[in-house]
Amino acid sequence: MKPKAAVVGLGFVGRAHVEALRRLGVTIFGGLGSSAETTASVCASLGLPRAYSSLEEVASDTNVEVVHLYTPNYPHFEEASRLLRAGKHVLCEKPLTVDSRESELLVSLAKETRRVGGVAYNLRYYPLCQEARALIEKGAIGRPNLVHGSFLQDWLLYESDWNWRLDPKLGGPLRAVSDIGTHWLDLVTWITGRKVTQVCADLATVIPQRQKPRGRMETFQKADPSNVEPVAITTDDYASVLLHLEGDVRGVMTVSQVSAGRKARLWFEIDGSEGSLAWNSEEPNMLWMGRRNAASQELPKDPGLMSAATRRYAAYPGGHPEGYPDTFVQLFRDFYGYVEAGDLQAPRSFPTFETGHEEMSLCEAIEKSAQERTWVSLGGE
Amino acid sequence: MKPKAAVVGLGFVGRAHVEALRRLGVTIFGGLGSSAETTASVCASLGLPRAYSSLEEVASDTNVEVVHLYTPNYPHFEEASRLLRAGKHVLCEKPLTVDSRESELLVSLAKETRRVGGVAYNLRYYPLCQEARALIEKGAIGRPNLVHGSFLQDWLLYESDWNWRLDPKLGGPLRAVSDIGTHWLDLVTWITGRKVTQVCADLATVIPQRQKPRGRMETFQKADPSNVEPVAITTDDYASVLLHLEGDVRGVMTVSQVSAGRKARLWFEIDGSEGSLAWNSEEPNMLWMGRRNAASQELPKDPGLMSAATRRYAAYPGGHPEGYPDTFVQLFRDFYGYVEAGDLQAPRSFPTFETGHEEMSLCEAIEKSAQERTWVSLGGE
Amino acid sequence: MKPKAAVVGLGFVGRAHVEALRRLGVTIFGGLGSSAETTASVCASLGLPRAYSSLEEVASDTNVEVVHLYTPNYPHFEEASRLLRAGKHVLCEKPLTVDSRESELLVSLAKETRRVGGVAYNLRYYPLCQEARALIEKGAIGRPNLVHGSFLQDWLLYESDWNWRLDPKLGGPLRAVSDIGTHWLDLVTWITGRKVTQVCADLATVIPQRQKPRGRMETFQKADPSNVEPVAITTDDYASVLLHLEGDVRGVMTVSQVSAGRKARLWFEIDGSEGSLAWNSEEPNMLWMGRRNAASQELPKDPGLMSAATRRYAAYPGGHPEGYPDTFVQLFRDFYGYVEAGDLQAPRSFPTFETGHEEMSLCEAIEKSAQERTWVSLGGE
Amino acid sequence: MKPKAAVVGLGFVGRAHVEALRRLGVTIFGGLGSSAETTASVCASLGLPRAYSSLEEVASDTNVEVVHLYTPNYPHFEEASRLLRAGKHVLCEKPLTVDSRESELLVSLAKETRRVGGVAYNLRYYPLCQEARALIEKGAIGRPNLVHGSFLQDWLLYESDWNWRLDPKLGGPLRAVSDIGTHWLDLVTWITGRKVTQVCADLATVIPQRQKPRGRMETFQKADPSNVEPVAITTDDYASVLLHLEGDVRGVMTVSQVSAGRKARLWFEIDGSEGSLAWNSEEPNMLWMGRRNAASQELPKDPGLMSAATRRYAAYPGGHPEGYPDTFVQLFRDFYGYVEAGDLQAPRSFPTFETGHEEMSLCEAIEKSAQERTWVSLGGE
Repeated sequence: MKPKAAVVGLGFVGRAHVEALRRLGVTIFGGLGSSAETTASVCASLGLPRAYSSLEEVASDTNVEVVHLYTPNYPHFEEASRLLRAGKHVLCEKPLTVDSRESELLVSLAKETRRVGGVAYNLRYYPLCQEARALIEKGAIGRPNLVHGSFLQDWLLYESDWNWRLDPKLGGPLRAVSDIGTHWLDLVTWITGRKVTQVCADLATVIPQRQKPRGRMETFQKADPSNVEPVAITTDDYASVLLHLEGDVRGVMTVSQVSAGRKARLWFEIDGSEGSLAWNSEEPNMLWMGRRNAASQELPKDPGLMSAATRRYAAYPGGHPEGYPDTFVQLFRDFYGYVEAGDLQAPRSFPTFETGHEEMSLCEAIEKSAQERTWVSLGGE
Repeated sequence: MKPKAAVVGLGFVGRAHVEALRRLGVTIFGGLGSSAETTASVCASLGLPRAYSSLEEVASDTNVEVVHLYTPNYPHFEEASRLLRAGKHVLCEKPLTVDSRESELLVSLAKETRRVGGVAYNLRYYPLCQEARALIEKGAIGRPNLVHGSFLQDWLLYESDWNWRLDPKLGGPLRAVSDIGTHWLDLVTWITGRKVTQVCADLATVIPQRQKPRGRMETFQKADPSNVEPVAITTDDYASVLLHLEGDVRGVMTVSQVSAGRKARLWFEIDGSEGSLAWNSEEPNMLWMGRRNAASQELPKDPGLMSAATRRYAAYPGGHPEGYPDTFVQLFRDFYGYVEAGDLQAPRSFPTFETGHEEMSLCEAIEKSAQERTWVSLGGE
Repeated sequence: MKPKAAVVGLGFVGRAHVEALRRLGVTIFGGLGSSAETTASVCASLGLPRAYSSLEEVASDTNVEVVHLYTPNYPHFEEASRLLRAGKHVLCEKPLTVDSRESELLVSLAKETRRVGGVAYNLRYYPLCQEARALIEKGAIGRPNLVHGSFLQDWLLYESDWNWRLDPKLGGPLRAVSDIGTHWLDLVTWITGRKVTQVCADLATVIPQRQKPRGRMETFQKADPSNVEPVAITTDDYASVLLHLEGDVRGVMTVSQVSAGRKARLWFEIDGSEGSLAWNSEEPNMLWMGRRNAASQELPKDPGLMSAATRRYAAYPGGHPEGYPDTFVQLFRDFYGYVEAGDLQAPRSFPTFETGHEEMSLCEAIEKSAQERTWVSLGGE
Repeated sequence: MKPKAAVVGLGFVGRAHVEALRRLGVTIFGGLGSSAETTASVCASLGLPRAYSSLEEVASDTNVEVVHLYTPNYPHFEEASRLLRAGKHVLCEKPLTVDSRESELLVSLAKETRRVGGVAYNLRYYPLCQEARALIEKGAIGRPNLVHGSFLQDWLLYESDWNWRLDPKLGGPLRAVSDIGTHWLDLVTWITGRKVTQVCADLATVIPQRQKPRGRMETFQKADPSNVEPVAITTDDYASVLLHLEGDVRGVMTVSQVSAGRKARLWFEIDGSEGSLAWNSEEPNMLWMGRRNAASQELPKDPGLMSAATRRYAAYPGGHPEGYPDTFVQLFRDFYGYVEAGDLQAPRSFPTFETGHEEMSLCEAIEKSAQERTWVSLGGE
């Protein structure tokens, strides 16, 4: 019997989750948006049976076993804590919190309450990202030496672009790094199985002043120019981070939200002693495998050509492209399968609160490195 | 109130439909597979409440308003007729029937019974195919002059590959043409708004004998080589068809199911007096627009960059790839919206039984042209 | 000692030949252009020692052993005949003549005079086209089954575009077919080692009237719109040709000079029983090799990765792109090496007058097929 | 009258220069290789009239006005100094010297002797790199904000790969940075018109020990494994460098010689306030121009579509790819045109000894930054 769900946060990503849950046949009891009006209208349009009026109501709805949390970053900690204490499993949008103290507490609280915590690093669930990890595990590119790439967007290119993430009181002190950089870092460290040990970062606020609309904005939506006020921006439009990873792996990541024509392009290359892998999220159905002494290879997303362990992440045959919405289906299948099985000692294939906490620690190291213009080590190194 | 559904045919495509219906919040009452065992196991795994035991049962289930029909081609006619007479709206997999006499009868019967008939030419519902049509309508490439392209697959490359479509008793006298060629023809004639008037075709059975497994095979699955029998093949592995379209448009289409490395690649180019469009289904989130006296353009699937009339077909922001599963969601939204509105005089934006009938007429003209090695005109021309 | 050369025809291609000859260290004695003024100015700008005043002068220059002929198509026959009789080897621009009677006579005359005739089907000399041929010869894709592709340009898209090739009195009765179609046909039949046996063609004059400038135009240059006259056009802007080749190979070729954004894009795909090859002249340094049961491959132009027999056609290491100018260097190296060796019985690796004659026969079959709207067999078949 | 040349250094690049000079009609008097045998055989195969026996002989050959210098990095300084003092103009392979003291002296010496010094940063001469610079100058992407990219190779991936550049006594203390990194830095700073002001670098020797062949190796050639000795490697296989440029531009560059499948791929992206540019040297005939509120663009190398100031760098029409060999032709045309004009006060469009000196200063800053694990400022900043 699949666990039953509620969704808190009904913006673009929250709605994506509702669809994905339905594809899996998960029952969704209700939703809670940023205001009573939003809640009512989105619940109606999505056909969700119950429009909650408060987090408290969600927490006390005994039908609900799993809560999906897609609010802005700041409230995550309070909300997730409340839900865990109420006995709910929590699947939270990234970044998990706004600092590592909070994320550490959530890790502990989940253990204490014996609830399952997940973080929506959904990009891992592109079938060929799963395959990239499997290929490295089986030695297909030898020993990984280098990781490099970028996550580029253009939705904040203009001074007139606005979103709550620009406000450090809602999004935290970092922006591009925490919003898209952590996707890249999570993906590449997970694929290579190597954690970051040292960082040296350069951050820039390319657009130091923006026009903030007086009403609330949806992610990826455009502002009404007639009702705005100038606001000084302190968060990062751009970052590049030199990386040292476990096992003598070196690398660099670039993130930007001001790169015209790049809508949401995460790209990585992993260079090993016997071959390379490269992939980009805007053409997710092809994985490039570089070879030195032979032709390089293009592996299509095709369950018939993928590893035995990963082909279940490709729901459709080769030549039938899968996309962003499908990543949530695969993530939730893993998460709900784990919750349903009920063995909290079993290894977790999905991104957990521990993952979320590691990413927060990384963000803090990046922030410190940029401020002090120096290398910063992670953890005890 | 969204109309309620049942699904007949529970193979790969049938399951895709179930998922897509759920994303739209459509209630599915039950399913019917190719055998009692299949029905039971697929209905259980998909969580469909009712496992039907016969088409008759579906037809007489008064809860059901729309039936999705994904059986092999031959039974379509009998099944669709029965369902229409029972008062069901029918959304049928392509090709609609195995000959144009049948498809014409279905068109008439749907009118007579005042039911809505649709055919699952879902590729139209890639957002950038919708946009291509809108761009041509608004004159973005001037007058269309040429259409060319192909639909290539490799799943029948080897003598040991088998599928029911290879058997003319199940699939009809044509195979590559009716299975994938009609997708291409539907897509390109719909995008350009021009029907085919004349064809000159060359068909080939590249692999004249295959090893047929003694059990039943799923599309895109592999046979057990130990239990096969040799069978002579008469249907087309390959076809190229010279085309004349309304409005002095010329063109050519190539289809093949034996092109190694092409998993399911539909590609078209439309050359107009002021520009060109090119698109390919394996990278569906980019539309190329050729220009003579300026740089050519890459239009991403981005609702913010698409025409007002088509952006609703892109469910996610730019940079968030959509794929094959999403096309069914968009198709069904159009179809169910039409059924729900209930005005049978309203223009239909989705592919209808008339579309299905036109494609059958085209198939017959192609078959005749190939047999007689001559040009064949469509309709009264 | 490398044979010494003269160049007749000093347009765009003629100048490309001069550069290529110099890269090989071939001495060029002089040039002859379309008028005394052109001859004088181009010879001066290229630093050619002698500006000839007539073909007769070239023919009687005893220094000259090889003459490169890049005049319009019509005079080729008279000029080549005169030069052969004067004892010159002749390397002629394609198409060799304007009909197969002429080309047959040139084949005979070259034999009789014991001179070497070549035709500038230079595209064969892209290193990866050489490699494609070698790969097929060694069975890398099994038995070739299908050939398809196109050669698309946009330089004649507008009614105001003009070039001597539009005039059948200079270019012959065909245009797109003879100018670019013969490149495609030569390339694909040479790579596969299979000749065309039957054709069924559809030709179209997309722009039936053009504005002809009153002065002479260079290929790829733009006309002065103030000094033009309307001219009815009879030659083909577009053609698609269904093909049967030796060994049960089927295929189709499309050519167009009115496809916006396609500057000069020759693309082919060859589908075999074990794999496929695809290549496109606008990205000539990559050859795609399709596979069914494995990742497909990207072979870069890299002598270290090419076959032993073909790597000499790649003059630079991998990652150092070679282009159109380099194809002439490779062609001339083959041609001059042959002339220098002096053994007229040795097999010829370059395109010969026999090649040119075959292409003329193909053109005539295509023209006949289009006029009669029927299949036409080549030769005795 | 074009200046006359000699070539010192007859490896792969030296031979490329000979070809390029001949395409321009420059007379080459002779060559000098790394040994008497090399000199004799290469001069014979290239048809160079004189095989010099020493640099002294070149310096005293009064026919020669320009000397092309393609020896390993260390001797550059002595050789260039000797040639300048003998009254020769010098076109030197990059890097100009092995430290900035030497390069500064060469800048002074060239001024003093009134000779012209050039450095072969030939990649600037890809037509679309010229166009990128022109587009930025005319404001096509607004104010540049970010530059990022990489130059990746794989020819030193294996422990068994060897080349003189690996030996710091011949190549200097840096390798990937000085050999390919300076190409990237020169190209991007030249295109944007912004110099580097600060760097923070991470360098790695991925393969700390290699097998050195006992004989001499040609660049891009393979060693005989039976006659090698193990050598500890100290130079960089990999580097990533955080960059600050004039005008608040931020960026990062990655270079590697151990990235399988990347033969010699220089890629850059320049993100501006109104658009972006991206280009890659393995597909040099296309420039991507990113747009936020419109379709992005693909500009082909087509003189008809390029800026008035740059189209002369495209020698062939659109659709006719140009490659690596063509860049030298364009570079030399600029350089020889300047020498021929004789006005030493005129602005120089080609990379000069000053360019070479700036690159050496950059290399030293990168080396220092990597050693001290800190940011380093250039010049007086």
